Amino acid sequence: MTINIAVFSLIVGVISILFAIFWLVKIRKSPSGTKEMLEINQAVDIGSRAYLKRQYQVIGLVGFIIFFILFFALGKILALGFLIGALGSAIAGYFGMLNSVKTSVRTAEAAKTSLSQAFKLAFYGGGVTGFLVMGLGLIAVSGFFLLTGNIESLIGLGFGGSLISVFARLGGGIYTKAADVGADLVGKIEKNIPEDDPRNPGVIADNVGDNVGDCAGMAADLFETYVVTLIGAMLVGHLFFESEPIFVFLPLLLAGLAGLASIIGSFFARIGEDSSKIMRGLYYSLFASSAISLILFYFALKFLAIENWFNLFLASLVGISIALLMVFITDYFTSKNFWPVRMIARSSEQGHATNIIAGLSISMLATIFPIILISLGIVASFSLFGLYGVATSAVAMLSMAGLIITLDAFGPITDNAGGISEMAHLSEETRKRTDALDSVGNTTKAVTKGYAIASAGLAALVLFGDYAVSLEKLGGKKILFELNDPLVLIGLFFGAMLPYIFGSLAMLSVSRTAGKIVEEIRRQFREIKGLMEGTAKPDYSRTVDIATKAALREMILPSLLPILITIVAAFVFGPKTLGGILIGVIISGLFLAISMTTGGGAWDNAKKYIEDGNHGGKGLFAHQAAVTGDTVGDPYKDTAGPAINPLIKVINVIALLIVGFLV
Amino acid sequence: MTINIAVFSLIVGVISILFAIFWLVKIRKSPSGTKEMLEINQAVDIGSRAYLKRQYQVIGLVGFIIFFILFFALGKILALGFLIGALGSAIAGYFGMLNSVKTSVRTAEAAKTSLSQAFKLAFYGGGVTGFLVMGLGLIAVSGFFLLTGNIESLIGLGFGGSLISVFARLGGGIYTKAADVGADLVGKIEKNIPEDDPRNPGVIADNVGDNVGDCAGMAADLFETYVVTLIGAMLVGHLFFESEPIFVFLPLLLAGLAGLASIIGSFFARIGEDSSKIMRGLYYSLFASSAISLILFYFALKFLAIENWFNLFLASLVGISIALLMVFITDYFTSKNFWPVRMIARSSEQGHATNIIAGLSISMLATIFPIILISLGIVASFSLFGLYGVATSAVAMLSMAGLIITLDAFGPITDNAGGISEMAHLSEETRKRTDALDSVGNTTKAVTKGYAIASAGLAALVLFGDYAVSLEKLGGKKILFELNDPLVLIGLFFGAMLPYIFGSLAMLSVSRTAGKIVEEIRRQFREIKGLMEGTAKPDYSRTVDIATKAALREMILPSLLPILITIVAAFVFGPKTLGGILIGVIISGLFLAISMTTGGGAWDNAKKYIEDGNHGGKGLFAHQAAVTGDTVGDPYKDTAGPAINPLIKVINVIALLIVGFLV
Repeated sequence: MTINIAVFSLIVGVISILFAIFWLVKIRKSPSGTKEMLEINQAVDIGSRAYLKRQYQVIGLVGFIIFFILFFALGKILALGFLIGALGSAIAGYFGMLNSVKTSVRTAEAAKTSLSQAFKLAFYGGGVTGFLVMGLGLIAVSGFFLLTGNIESLIGLGFGGSLISVFARLGGGIYTKAADVGADLVGKIEKNIPEDDPRNPGVIADNVGDNVGDCAGMAADLFETYVVTLIGAMLVGHLFFESEPIFVFLPLLLAGLAGLASIIGSFFARIGEDSSKIMRGLYYSLFASSAISLILFYFALKFLAIENWFNLFLASLVGISIALLMVFITDYFTSKNFWPVRMIARSSEQGHATNIIAGLSISMLATIFPIILISLGIVASFSLFGLYGVATSAVAMLSMAGLIITLDAFGPITDNAGGISEMAHLSEETRKRTDALDSVGNTTKAVTKGYAIASAGLAALVLFGDYAVSLEKLGGKKILFELNDPLVLIGLFFGAMLPYIFGSLAMLSVSRTAGKIVEEIRRQFREIKGLMEGTAKPDYSRTVDIATKAALREMILPSLLPILITIVAAFVFGPKTLGGILIGVIISGLFLAISMTTGGGAWDNAKKYIEDGNHGGKGLFAHQAAVTGDTVGDPYKDTAGPAINPLIKVINVIALLIVGFLV
Repeated sequence: MTINIAVFSLIVGVISILFAIFWLVKIRKSPSGTKEMLEINQAVDIGSRAYLKRQYQVIGLVGFIIFFILFFALGKILALGFLIGALGSAIAGYFGMLNSVKTSVRTAEAAKTSLSQAFKLAFYGGGVTGFLVMGLGLIAVSGFFLLTGNIESLIGLGFGGSLISVFARLGGGIYTKAADVGADLVGKIEKNIPEDDPRNPGVIADNVGDNVGDCAGMAADLFETYVVTLIGAMLVGHLFFESEPIFVFLPLLLAGLAGLASIIGSFFARIGEDSSKIMRGLYYSLFASSAISLILFYFALKFLAIENWFNLFLASLVGISIALLMVFITDYFTSKNFWPVRMIARSSEQGHATNIIAGLSISMLATIFPIILISLGIVASFSLFGLYGVATSAVAMLSMAGLIITLDAFGPITDNAGGISEMAHLSEETRKRTDALDSVGNTTKAVTKGYAIASAGLAALVLFGDYAVSLEKLGGKKILFELNDPLVLIGLFFGAMLPYIFGSLAMLSVSRTAGKIVEEIRRQFREIKGLMEGTAKPDYSRTVDIATKAALREMILPSLLPILITIVAAFVFGPKTLGGILIGVIISGLFLAISMTTGGGAWDNAKKYIEDGNHGGKGLFAHQAAVTGDTVGDPYKDTAGPAINPLIKVINVIALLIVGFLV
């Protein structure tokens, strides 16, 4: 029975990948545009591949060292798991990005004639990444588990996934935002030329950035979210119910069923020619897959006849409700239709500073409802089935992962399509269509991040529980993590500090890298005669090269420093402090990540709202202030904020790896 | 013996106030300037008094209601304590402000001829507030205790002080920053007239704001810090060492001795005519009083011959070290001489957005060293003498309170002196001198906030310990606050959320109020003919009136909401969740408060650094960007950030008030 579950989950993984290929074929059949468009697209393609290749070389080197450390310290199976996790994350990132590049040019072509056709292509393109990531996750976890039968070694797999994702999220994030900020600062503000103008020497780097950051980084991140959540839940089943193996396999079963539900749900996405209803059309597929998942969960749990199975079902309902509500809360705070974004837009009338103050306020305010929601979810699912209830909730949230990634990958595809249509001088009408899609993409990107961070909160709690029980089992006695205990307390402080260090270093990296790109763009405008007049072409590849080198150099320190601090603190102050660190990083990580990703999304759409013709429209004073806000929001929402998600988990996974040395 | 200690502490309180009066007389003897200066000063005086009068009317109403609730729920002695705490805070705020107003005009006058003379006056002025606050604190706590002999009722006194301080810090903070931002946005950016230009209809409101926010609010806040830390420590002595009353009185003894040491230490402040050495001159007095305090502590503890007295001495050494190191860390991050401020200044060259990104990064980075310092301090003092060791550390930090307040109150005095010299058209040379003092004032203001928040961290931990023990004693069984417990965990989340709600609402309030002031200033420039030309006078009082009304309306919700959420959560989820809230609010509160106050100070001085002639100097592109950063930093450092300090403690004090109803 239990083995059958793992096999089932493996099969769903394969189906999911086949489904991704099925959509990929559909996309490839669609027309790919004019020669000019293809040329631009190819430049982006080359730049993106070149970056990823070098990024994975750097990461590969770090990974190689860690592989050997794990090999000798914790055994070859765990080290193998690490390798698989790392590879899974890298593959998800690489193909996710490739697919985005290929789809964006076709989306731009389709936008020439029809919004709904362009939407469909972007949605399919997102889906390819979504179902690829989900399929890889299912195959990696269930395949590795079938092969080795060793649950502890799965931690290695999770670690591989998390570590690579921190690097990918951060490196890509630094690249994309440094290029974006750099290109905008010189182009929009100094030279007064529009976004994505082909005269801007940073424009290809900017588009490459969208792919390596929002696409490759995001896909790696969500792969990590997926496998770590699954592994954390299986581990709870293993540690708490040693005599009942079904609890180890149940998360795989739920994930498999949810995978099927997502594939079916994806057919429910609807879109017409009315751009204001794009979001709603996307949400249909979410609802459908949630409902189907719940029905499948119900019958599966009933069939397995576990004691109190209905409580487990309710815990899964809690998880799905959190996921859906997170989507709506984030939507409220980042969509142009509601108070927060409009308030920021209105504040722009008084200038740069008031725009920033408003945006910062909103970013802080945006944490409240998610935190209350997650808190209530924790209490509810815990009271239903203890820590395993929380784990089930977290796994149920995953049931939407395929579609959520689809929505997210939709973002950079439409963003790039917009870039291509601008650079290839397509008609005003085309650009309007890609802009409408792009604005939705901003919200869906923020929505995914909200979803990812909420699931990270639950998953990390589960990992903390695994850590506490492992510590008890290995040490032979229960260790209390008491708030009164100064060792726990300083652990909380240290843990809470990590996202601050990480976020701060990440933003400084963006700043420094952007500075270099600004210099290069200014140099080209100064030295290349006829560039402004459009008679000479800029040297795109040099900007791409500078961004690549700088991003790779900058990603190392912020990624490794929190990990090192955790390990040092654990060995200096002991397992109680480490426990405090795990919870501390969750607490401050959740707040920082939610405020940064939501705030950034709100700033971005406040600018778009003004560009729609409100508060004076494009080019006027309020718009300039809104551009400032958008630029500040960029490293918030696309570099520091989302990378906190894998950071929280890598810290928690590391605790599980070193727990044996602490007793 | 023990009673003698309380009497000693009372006497030191009286001496401290006499010392304040001694300096006050010295200041009053100094020349008060020309008729024009006095006229301006009087306008500020009237506006400040009018605001405070109305603020205390509003607070009085809220306080009155709470007094009756306490009277019936917790008895008349505790309610009386509340009244005394509230009055103490109000008196500290009122006289602190009055003194600042009177001193600033004399400082401006002295700056006409000599930097050292102006410095001396500003320092004396700060000292009047500093020793007044310290004296009031000592008299309130020891006097009330001598009168009633009831330790539990002291909690009422702490609550009174904390609650009034939250209001005063927030109301004053909203006023001062809304006026500042409003006046700057129209004056500096739209009309291109200098800061403090008398043509600006917001200029008097701006100066009033400095007094009601930075002076009255700060004095109330530090009074609260002082009494709550003392009371928390006495309570630990009471709860942990019931049979040894000396532990209740020891905090009073240390505070009294430190009071004497501060008075002596104040004579060590040195200044010449070299403006770059002002800071160093101020620090001499800090060192001297620290050293004297430690010597007195050593002999007193030795004389009392408590078991392990040397460990207590070491704990006090830990506290003083934290205080001194906090001063240097904050100084590093906010002074023009070091990397952080210069990096922000350099980033301004690329524009508004890069200035903001750099400032946000620095604000996050600035949390790291204080957090590590506080964490190590907690572990060290706890290992020396348990929770009483932490309490002793916190009380020892207080030994510098008198001088720290002196340094802080120095800030608004020099700021106002600068305003007066600009408005009264004093010479370029005079303005340069007041500017040099003002820039130091920025750093000392940030330094105080760093000190206050670090001491708040320790004090709040002590209060949490008091809560846990009270709960155990009242309920008859030990309650564990375990990180594994979901009720504790959601408490941590809820608690961490409170500073976010508070900060966000406070910044939105500043935004809204500033918007109203901007409208009014624009209206006056539009409707009053000859205003720009200097032939007509603006209607200052109307701007003052608008700021007053708006600030008072806006301060209510952010102050009361976190308190209500805490009480509701405590009664819905029980005492474990409340325990989590207490620690959660400390964790996120420390990070937010440090990042906001330090970041704001750094932004401010980055602007001043550019105004010194770096990166193009005043009026150029980098300067405009730096002005934006300064404006964003304003509500960070003077509204939301510092008010988090009393917020943390009011939440912890409330737990002690309601603990009896939770068992």
